[in-house]
Amino acid sequence: MLIQPDRLFPAEPSSRAVARRLYDAVRNLPIVSPHGHTDPRWYAQNEPFPDPATLFVIPDHYIFRMLYSQGVSLEDLGVPTRGGSPVERDARKIWHRFAAHYHLFRGTPTRAWLDHTFATLFGFTERLSPKTADDYFDRIDMALRTPEFRPRALFERFRIEVIATTESPLDPLKSHETIRQSGWNGRVITAYRPDPVIDPDFEGFGDNLVRFGEITGCDTLSWDGYLEAHRKRRAFFRDHGATSTDHGHPTARTADLPRAETEALFRKVSTGVVSADEAELFRAQMLTEMAAMSVEDGMVMQIHPGSFRNHNNALFARFGRDMGADIPSRTDYVRALKPLLDRFGNERDFSLIVFTLDETSYSRELAPLAGHYPALKLGPAWWFFDAPEGMRRFRELTTETAGFYNTVGFNDDTRAYLSIPARHDVARRVDCAFLADLVTTHRLDEDEAHEVAHDLAYRLAKEAYKL
Amino acid sequence: MLIQPDRLFPAEPSSRAVARRLYDAVRNLPIVSPHGHTDPRWYAQNEPFPDPATLFVIPDHYIFRMLYSQGVSLEDLGVPTRGGSPVERDARKIWHRFAAHYHLFRGTPTRAWLDHTFATLFGFTERLSPKTADDYFDRIDMALRTPEFRPRALFERFRIEVIATTESPLDPLKSHETIRQSGWNGRVITAYRPDPVIDPDFEGFGDNLVRFGEITGCDTLSWDGYLEAHRKRRAFFRDHGATSTDHGHPTARTADLPRAETEALFRKVSTGVVSADEAELFRAQMLTEMAAMSVEDGMVMQIHPGSFRNHNNALFARFGRDMGADIPSRTDYVRALKPLLDRFGNERDFSLIVFTLDETSYSRELAPLAGHYPALKLGPAWWFFDAPEGMRRFRELTTETAGFYNTVGFNDDTRAYLSIPARHDVARRVDCAFLADLVTTHRLDEDEAHEVAHDLAYRLAKEAYKL
Amino acid sequence: MLIQPDRLFPAEPSSRAVARRLYDAVRNLPIVSPHGHTDPRWYAQNEPFPDPATLFVIPDHYIFRMLYSQGVSLEDLGVPTRGGSPVERDARKIWHRFAAHYHLFRGTPTRAWLDHTFATLFGFTERLSPKTADDYFDRIDMALRTPEFRPRALFERFRIEVIATTESPLDPLKSHETIRQSGWNGRVITAYRPDPVIDPDFEGFGDNLVRFGEITGCDTLSWDGYLEAHRKRRAFFRDHGATSTDHGHPTARTADLPRAETEALFRKVSTGVVSADEAELFRAQMLTEMAAMSVEDGMVMQIHPGSFRNHNNALFARFGRDMGADIPSRTDYVRALKPLLDRFGNERDFSLIVFTLDETSYSRELAPLAGHYPALKLGPAWWFFDAPEGMRRFRELTTETAGFYNTVGFNDDTRAYLSIPARHDVARRVDCAFLADLVTTHRLDEDEAHEVAHDLAYRLAKEAYKL
Repeated sequence: MLIQPDRLFPAEPSSRAVARRLYDAVRNLPIVSPHGHTDPRWYAQNEPFPDPATLFVIPDHYIFRMLYSQGVSLEDLGVPTRGGSPVERDARKIWHRFAAHYHLFRGTPTRAWLDHTFATLFGFTERLSPKTADDYFDRIDMALRTPEFRPRALFERFRIEVIATTESPLDPLKSHETIRQSGWNGRVITAYRPDPVIDPDFEGFGDNLVRFGEITGCDTLSWDGYLEAHRKRRAFFRDHGATSTDHGHPTARTADLPRAETEALFRKVSTGVVSADEAELFRAQMLTEMAAMSVEDGMVMQIHPGSFRNHNNALFARFGRDMGADIPSRTDYVRALKPLLDRFGNERDFSLIVFTLDETSYSRELAPLAGHYPALKLGPAWWFFDAPEGMRRFRELTTETAGFYNTVGFNDDTRAYLSIPARHDVARRVDCAFLADLVTTHRLDEDEAHEVAHDLAYRLAKEAYKL
Repeated sequence: MLIQPDRLFPAEPSSRAVARRLYDAVRNLPIVSPHGHTDPRWYAQNEPFPDPATLFVIPDHYIFRMLYSQGVSLEDLGVPTRGGSPVERDARKIWHRFAAHYHLFRGTPTRAWLDHTFATLFGFTERLSPKTADDYFDRIDMALRTPEFRPRALFERFRIEVIATTESPLDPLKSHETIRQSGWNGRVITAYRPDPVIDPDFEGFGDNLVRFGEITGCDTLSWDGYLEAHRKRRAFFRDHGATSTDHGHPTARTADLPRAETEALFRKVSTGVVSADEAELFRAQMLTEMAAMSVEDGMVMQIHPGSFRNHNNALFARFGRDMGADIPSRTDYVRALKPLLDRFGNERDFSLIVFTLDETSYSRELAPLAGHYPALKLGPAWWFFDAPEGMRRFRELTTETAGFYNTVGFNDDTRAYLSIPARHDVARRVDCAFLADLVTTHRLDEDEAHEVAHDLAYRLAKEAYKL
Repeated sequence: MLIQPDRLFPAEPSSRAVARRLYDAVRNLPIVSPHGHTDPRWYAQNEPFPDPATLFVIPDHYIFRMLYSQGVSLEDLGVPTRGGSPVERDARKIWHRFAAHYHLFRGTPTRAWLDHTFATLFGFTERLSPKTADDYFDRIDMALRTPEFRPRALFERFRIEVIATTESPLDPLKSHETIRQSGWNGRVITAYRPDPVIDPDFEGFGDNLVRFGEITGCDTLSWDGYLEAHRKRRAFFRDHGATSTDHGHPTARTADLPRAETEALFRKVSTGVVSADEAELFRAQMLTEMAAMSVEDGMVMQIHPGSFRNHNNALFARFGRDMGADIPSRTDYVRALKPLLDRFGNERDFSLIVFTLDETSYSRELAPLAGHYPALKLGPAWWFFDAPEGMRRFRELTTETAGFYNTVGFNDDTRAYLSIPARHDVARRVDCAFLADLVTTHRLDEDEAHEVAHDLAYRLAKEAYKL
């Protein structure tokens, strides 16, 4: 058996029994996925996924970063280089390399997600290993060619009620348009991620600004035109289902500068003569500008700060972004968010969902802030912490101060489509285990725990993201 | 049943049995409350408490911050504004609003304290909810009019051996005087909290200095006179039972400047021309000055650093201090405390009790410091961390380095009088649960655990605070 | 019974049963001790250890720091002063003082190590206390005079396969030479710890540089000669078994300066005119230089940053280094290590093992870095965290991101020879307990847990340190 029915439940029998009861009531709830990175073309074109290596290994930075850390080269895993230099193209060989290192994932969520996927989608009962690698490859490869494994069929099989993708303001949202016109009733919405036109350090920022103007018909080299372009594009995204924006800045810093200063800063930014501090200040100011627009247009605002992107210079030069070399760093929220909160923190209809990669902020900063400001909510355990221990810490460190109702349920934040049911299942199990401990230690009654379990698995995500 | 006899004990039966045995031996120990914020007028005047809303909701920032975070206005909860603009005055309506949001407190200590109070003092067996709100209101309201619910009767019912309140040096301690002369033998002592005359950023600091001079007959605008005023006032507080001082600075920074520099700094401070850095430096220097006086007069010194006070500007403007908008922030101790510790850290008869709102300092800084310096002791899990998970983390993160005997037992730190038994009960249970785990995993013998449980529940607080 | 067979295993019976099975398979594995501070003269001369106080109390800063924190003077414990002023010389009196305070160690690893040692080496079954102090003293004292308690006999009894000591480049390694020539086949190797000739703030740094030149015949006041001296001395250490270097800097900062700048900096450093910032920069640069040499000569590199050494001025003046007054402080790795990682982070044959005293970095920085960079590995829970709760947190906070295979097994890092089996036993038990929880919650299969337990107890240390 690859997966056990009681996985992730407390070992102690009475707690386990409670966890089981709670989980049984939420296990089959539809999946609400308000934040993620699946490719909308999958749903638009509904083409078969390629071979197992191309589906599971090559695009998954959780997988290749671990293999890389143990000496496997990215070339040998088929990861394409920027310059197009040769990399492994034999999918079966890549799969074998992956299988040979499967033990590296012991104790990691990647292992849990994969085993869940292998067991529930492909019927495997024996662990992936060099011995079973070929059988895995063949059976998965065959399955992927069947209609049941097309993106839309999986969408329905996964019971996805709604899924959000994430797009740049420069994206024409063609796939979302195609989906809408296709008559298929799967709900795939977009989300507005304006980093490419907000972050002066983003690759191609200058060109992006120009393109932003072309797309919107606004003069994006003037401050007013630039803001107007955002407003237009946000409206366009809302037309394609978007209910939220997302901001992946290096820090949580916000600013609320006088208009003249902001304009002067934008002039520098838009002409490319900007220092690191000024770039940071511009990003900070733009978070507050985005919040102002959210107050106007009702879009939920998410900030995902604290990642030092592309930490590995050589790897970045050779392979580009998102190669598993983004490293969290210390992040302040108390002072960083104050300018924005001073403006909009008391707005009851504005929602600012904050994520963190710095767990020290859970109990020290984020729970106290979220347990006070009407506008602020806590996003779930994120990225490296989207795993059983990380999720448990999130609840242990936030609940006593912020309660459950200043959190927003789970989101999978993934580009690994097939792992989505596994991820939601892990979240539901971990939350039920946490609740079961509260029940068994008489901190919560079981009838209430049932209500909370349902809220965490389903209702809060829908409400927080206005879905 | 609102509360269960085994609440907060480990789920595993053999651990739970040990926890029960440990707890049974300490559950009825008298309450020693060496640090808190109850109003001494209650004990002096022994008047009935007002209605349920005024007793439980309006003054409790744990409660109204949570409701505020979910969109309930403070006005609707009857919280008075600075300007005296109208707020809800119907206690029953406030109570209903509170009851309607009682689910928000699931998993929080507020819920545990309230249920304990509702069950043990008022005999409720059903949860507070919109359905039971009227019954709750009526029964509590009726009870509060009976003699058994007067402050002194509760004091005895709570088995309080001694309770400390906290007063400003400008406070005439009239209530403490009244209590002393009343013949009642409840032991209510004061504690010296000189922030209003030490912190240049305190509201009304300049006027406070003048008033400080008037009260003490010292020239508080000269450095020597200012210090003399502290000495006199500390003596006056000791005459009213005080055994400790308390200091609520934004950081833990201390300084040990040459006398000439200190005098020059005080000149600036006392004339109101002081920068933010100078204000911080003055507070830092004053911690060392207070330590010097403690070495002389034997008063135990407490520092409670790390809160960013009044984070919400608009709320502060409308409602003033202590409105649930104080947010912890990162706090350094290693460098901050060094100047003070260099002077007095090796004094065996001086006690410096340090609290923190930055849990990262427990294992990294505070336990290593307390496990070395004779003068330094660790205060219990504080404020947002005065809750089962927070207390457990405190023990897990400090015990292996500092042991149990560099900690000082529990203090409730509360202004919510009726919650005092509940808070001490939670602390005793959590400590017994922690000890039970040590016993069950054979890290501590049960006879020793009994001794430690007694120390943590009673003896350490008495000894650390010289009570 | 002083120690119980199931100590440190989970309380829950099914988890405990798994832990027992895992532990039974690794409990008798040989001890690999790749990093420690035992005195090589013990193995070279094989003389009896002195009396119990001199063996257990006087040299152990874990013990005397705790006693000191509770008011016992170091003089009364026989700790020698720098100036040679009189201290207690009566070993039995010291032992009694220790015994009278043995309760202070409740819940600490010191207690666990000592009880394990007392029980397994000396056969005690009753706790150390004032009542048993004499019996303890007499029986230990007698045992120490027997051949079975000579260092080499204990080495064999402990089943030590290999142990590393730590020496300064200025050390002639005479004892290692003596051991080699003695015909005894115990494997005692050295490790290269160049802080005394790298850290400009090290006591006697200027003299050390000169001595470094004399020993190596290099011009250590020129940059090239200085580097050459390191190369020569590293080779000499390798001849005496060394496979690793170790660096105990205050921070993890690394630098990669242009050669001209480095030379200019070295000139300042070597002539003694260096600011605090320049000293820090030189240490930073030297980590990268040492990494460069490791890439050449294959020595594994360890960095142990983050301790604020000699925090207690008065104590340092009176007793010198290593008196229990080293306090951890906040440590950044993400930016600090980048210069070194940019040069050598992608080298597959280079191993950089990083330790931390700042637990916040486990999940936020170190696990993400180690889970990506081929060169980086995580050292085990260190110093104050080398204890059951600390070790558990290490696994909980690193495994989900870095897995088990970017860690390097256990090392005891101790100068307390007799505690070595106890320390490895604690590590094995805690790891088995952690693995048992993974098995019982179905996150890992038991056959895999057996493999991992063996790896953590034995294989990883051997491989990571090339032993």
